[in-house]
Amino acid sequence: MADFSRRRLLGGGAAVLGAVGLGAAGAGVAVATRVSERMGANTVEPHGVHQAGIDTEPQAFATFVALDLRPDVDRAGVIGVMKVWAEDTRRLTQGVAALGDTEPELAVDPARLTVTVGYGSAAFDASASAAARPTWLRPLPSFDIDRLEDRWSGGDLLLQVCADDPVTVSHAVRTLTKSVRSRASVRWVQRGFRHAVGTRPDGLTMRNLMGQVDGTVNPQPATPDFDRQVWNAGEPAWLAGGTSLVLRRIRMELDTWDELDRPAKDLVMGRRQSDGAPLTGTAEHDDADFEMVDDHGIPVIPPESHVARARPRSADEQFLRRAYNYDDDGAGLLFAAYQGDVDRQFVPVQKRLAEHDALNTWTTPVGSAVFLIPPGYGPDGYPGDALLEN
Amino acid sequence: MADFSRRRLLGGGAAVLGAVGLGAAGAGVAVATRVSERMGANTVEPHGVHQAGIDTEPQAFATFVALDLRPDVDRAGVIGVMKVWAEDTRRLTQGVAALGDTEPELAVDPARLTVTVGYGSAAFDASASAAARPTWLRPLPSFDIDRLEDRWSGGDLLLQVCADDPVTVSHAVRTLTKSVRSRASVRWVQRGFRHAVGTRPDGLTMRNLMGQVDGTVNPQPATPDFDRQVWNAGEPAWLAGGTSLVLRRIRMELDTWDELDRPAKDLVMGRRQSDGAPLTGTAEHDDADFEMVDDHGIPVIPPESHVARARPRSADEQFLRRAYNYDDDGAGLLFAAYQGDVDRQFVPVQKRLAEHDALNTWTTPVGSAVFLIPPGYGPDGYPGDALLEN
Ligand code: HEM
Ligand code: HEM
Repeated sequence: MADFSRRRLLGGGAAVLGAVGLGAAGAGVAVATRVSERMGANTVEPHGVHQAGIDTEPQAFATFVALDLRPDVDRAGVIGVMKVWAEDTRRLTQGVAALGDTEPELAVDPARLTVTVGYGSAAFDASASAAARPTWLRPLPSFDIDRLEDRWSGGDLLLQVCADDPVTVSHAVRTLTKSVRSRASVRWVQRGFRHAVGTRPDGLTMRNLMGQVDGTVNPQPATPDFDRQVWNAGEPAWLAGGTSLVLRRIRMELDTWDELDRPAKDLVMGRRQSDGAPLTGTAEHDDADFEMVDDHGIPVIPPESHVARARPRSADEQFLRRAYNYDDDGAGLLFAAYQGDVDRQFVPVQKRLAEHDALNTWTTPVGSAVFLIPPGYGPDGYPGDALLEN
Repeated sequence: MADFSRRRLLGGGAAVLGAVGLGAAGAGVAVATRVSERMGANTVEPHGVHQAGIDTEPQAFATFVALDLRPDVDRAGVIGVMKVWAEDTRRLTQGVAALGDTEPELAVDPARLTVTVGYGSAAFDASASAAARPTWLRPLPSFDIDRLEDRWSGGDLLLQVCADDPVTVSHAVRTLTKSVRSRASVRWVQRGFRHAVGTRPDGLTMRNLMGQVDGTVNPQPATPDFDRQVWNAGEPAWLAGGTSLVLRRIRMELDTWDELDRPAKDLVMGRRQSDGAPLTGTAEHDDADFEMVDDHGIPVIPPESHVARARPRSADEQFLRRAYNYDDDGAGLLFAAYQGDVDRQFVPVQKRLAEHDALNTWTTPVGSAVFLIPPGYGPDGYPGDALLEN
C-alpha cells in the first residue's frame, strides 16, 4: 500500500506547486519544509503518505469544523469539495492566498498551518461508497456518562485547521468553508487552544484547564508504535496511511473539582498535577507502576484512577491523543483521539472509562463525533482520492 | 492630581510585593518590568498612575468580562471585590498564583498579563457614590445602525484581561471571576485575538478580519497627545489618570463585503487594504489628505468613506482604539475605545458614523457597553480607591 500511496503522491506537480516552491513530499511524516526565524513563516508540507495535522507537533490553535452535505450532493459533488479543499490547502499552508481569496493579506503567515480533512458516515452514502465504509465509522455507542448535545455532535465532513496563529486559523476556516458553500453547510465549529508559541520552553507537554500535564503517555511520531497505533494498515486497502478521529467535547466541572484538595486530585488521576509524574514515580516520563502497593498493601495508583482505568489492557487499546482546551460555553477539553480502527482501539478504553473512572464525577461529555481521515495525497490528489477514484 | 496619585501609589508595600519582587511603580506608563528571552516570562507592572492594559502595547489575546453585582452588595461589598481583584492582579501579573488558586500551575507564565478593571453605572449606585458618577457613564445614545443584543451589552463591572498566551488569559479570567463569585455574577464574556507573538515582524499594525490594517491613526503612549486624549484630567478630581472604555461588538457582514471588488473596498474605507495607506498617499503612516481631488475635481478620499467620516472635526474628537478580532458567533471586531470623556470625545464621532459611513452597509453593532476605568493604584490600593476612600 505504501508503494501505491507513494505513486499517487509523486504523480506530477500542479501549477500552484511550482509557484509556491513546493518539492514533492517524501517521508511519511509531515515535516516543516520551511522553518524560519519568524514563527509565522514556518510551514508544514501538505502532501505525503499521511495528511498533516496528526503527526505534526501540535500547533497552539485548532478549530474543528463539521459540515453537512447539501441533500443533492452526489459523488461528483463530494469530489468537487475535496478538490477545492486540496487546492486551498496547497496554497494556504504555504502562505499563498486561495484562488478568489478576498482577504489575501490574511494568508501570508502560515504559522505551521495544517488542514486535515475527515469523512463522516454520511459522506460515504452521498458519494455512493457505502460498501467501502469501515464498520467503525458511526457514532460511538452511547454511554451513561454522556450528556451529548446535537450542536457539538456528528457531521458529514470534518475540517481540522491548526496553526500557531489564531488569525491564520480564522482566515483558513473562513476560506475553506466559503469555498464549498454551495455543497456543504457548517454544522458546528469548536475552537481549541494550547499555550502560545514562546510562552513556555519548547517541548513541554501541554497543561489542560484543570492544570494537569496532559498528553504524556502518547506514541512519538515516526516510531513503529506511532505507525501501528495511528495509521490504518490497509483495512480496507484504500485506507492504508489514513486514520480516524474521535472528537469528544468534554466539559470540566471545575467548580466542584476545585473543592478537592491536591492529594485527592492526584489520587483521582493517578498522577501528580504538579509535575505530571505517576504517583509511583518522580518524573513526568517515568513508567507508571500499577502493581506497586504501600505499607498497608494498598495500590499507590488507585485502580479506579483515570490513568489506571485508561491504560491499555492489550497492545490494541492504544491511540494518539492530541487534545485542545476550550473555554467558550463552559470550559473543558476538545479530546481528540486518532487510531487506525475506532472499534478495536478506542471503544474498549472509552467503555471502561464510562463504566468506572474516578474522574467522571468532574467531567461530562457534551459532544461526540467520529470521522474517517483518508490517507495523505499528492500534488494532483485530494483527501479520499484513493477511495473515490476506484 | 498626578502628585496625589503618585502619593497613593508609593504609599508602602504589601507583603505579596516583597514576595514576588515588585518594585514601586514609577512613571505613568505601564512598563514591562521583566522582559525575558521567553515570551511567557514577560511581565507588565500592575501599579502606576494609570491601570495597565491601555497604554500597554496590545497583547495577542483579550477577554472582556462584564459582571453584575448581586442585589445585596453595598459599598463595603464593592470595596471587597476591588481589593480581591487588586490582590489577584498583583500576583497573577507576576506569575504568582492567586491565594487559594487551585490550578497554580496555570499561573506561572504571565506573558504580559494585564488586568484592567472598570465600573459600570450601577456600581456607583451600589457603592453609594451616585453623586460622583460622571454624566457620560451611561449607555450610548441609541443609533439607527444598532442591532444590540442584551447578551453582549451593559454590565455593572468590567474585567479586561489581556496576555500573549490564551491559557494565561483563561486561567486569570477564571481566577478573578471565581474570587468574587459571592458578590458578582458573570453577565457576558467576549474573547478577542490578534496575531500571535512571532507571527509577524514586531511593530506592525494588526489586521482585522476584513483584512484591513486597523489601528494606524492612534495616539502613541507616553506622548502629550496620548495623555490628553486618553487620561481623564480630573473631571471629577478623583478620576485624574483614569479613563473610560466604550466596547462595541461589531459584526462584519463578510459575505456581502466580499462581493465588492478591491477598488470598491478601498473607496469605502478611504485607505488601501493592501498596505493601509490613505488613498492620497503611498505608505501606511502618511497623513491622509482629505482635500485632494482628482482630475475631475472628485475627492480622492470619498467624503462618505469610513476614515473621512471618522476623522476628528476638532481636537476633542479623539481617542485610543485598541480593537480585537472575534470569530465566535459570527465574525467581527471587539471595538474598544478609551477616552477621558465619552460624551465629549467618542459620542460625536459615533454619531457621525451612524448618520453616514459607507462602511455601515457591511458592519452591524450587536453589543455596546460603557465603563469608567478608575486611575491606577499602588501596592496598598485597589481600582477605585480614590473614589471609595473619600
Ligand atoms: C476532560 C477529560 C479528560 C481529562 C482531563 C484527561 C486527563 C488525562 C491526564 C492528565 C492524563 C495523564 C497524563 C497523560 O498521559 O496524558 C491522562 C491519561 C490518559 N487518558 Fe485522559 N483525560 C480525559 C479524558 C479521556 C478520555 C475520554 C479518554 C479515552 C476514552 C482518555 C484516555 C487517556 C489515556 C489512554 C491516557 C494514558 C493512560 C496511560 O496509559 O497511562 N482520557 N488523561
Ligand atoms: C467593524 C467596524 C470597524 C472597522 C472594520 C473599522 C476599520 C477601520 C480602519 C481599517 C481604519 C483605518 C486605519 C486606522 O487608522 O486604524 C479605521 C480608522 C478609524 N476608525 Fe474605524 N472601524 C470600525 C468601526 C469604527 C467605529 C465604531 C469607530 C468610532 C465610533 C471608528 C473610528 C475610527 C477612527 C477615529 C479612525 C481614524 C480616522 C482618521 O483620523 O484617519 N471605527 N477604522
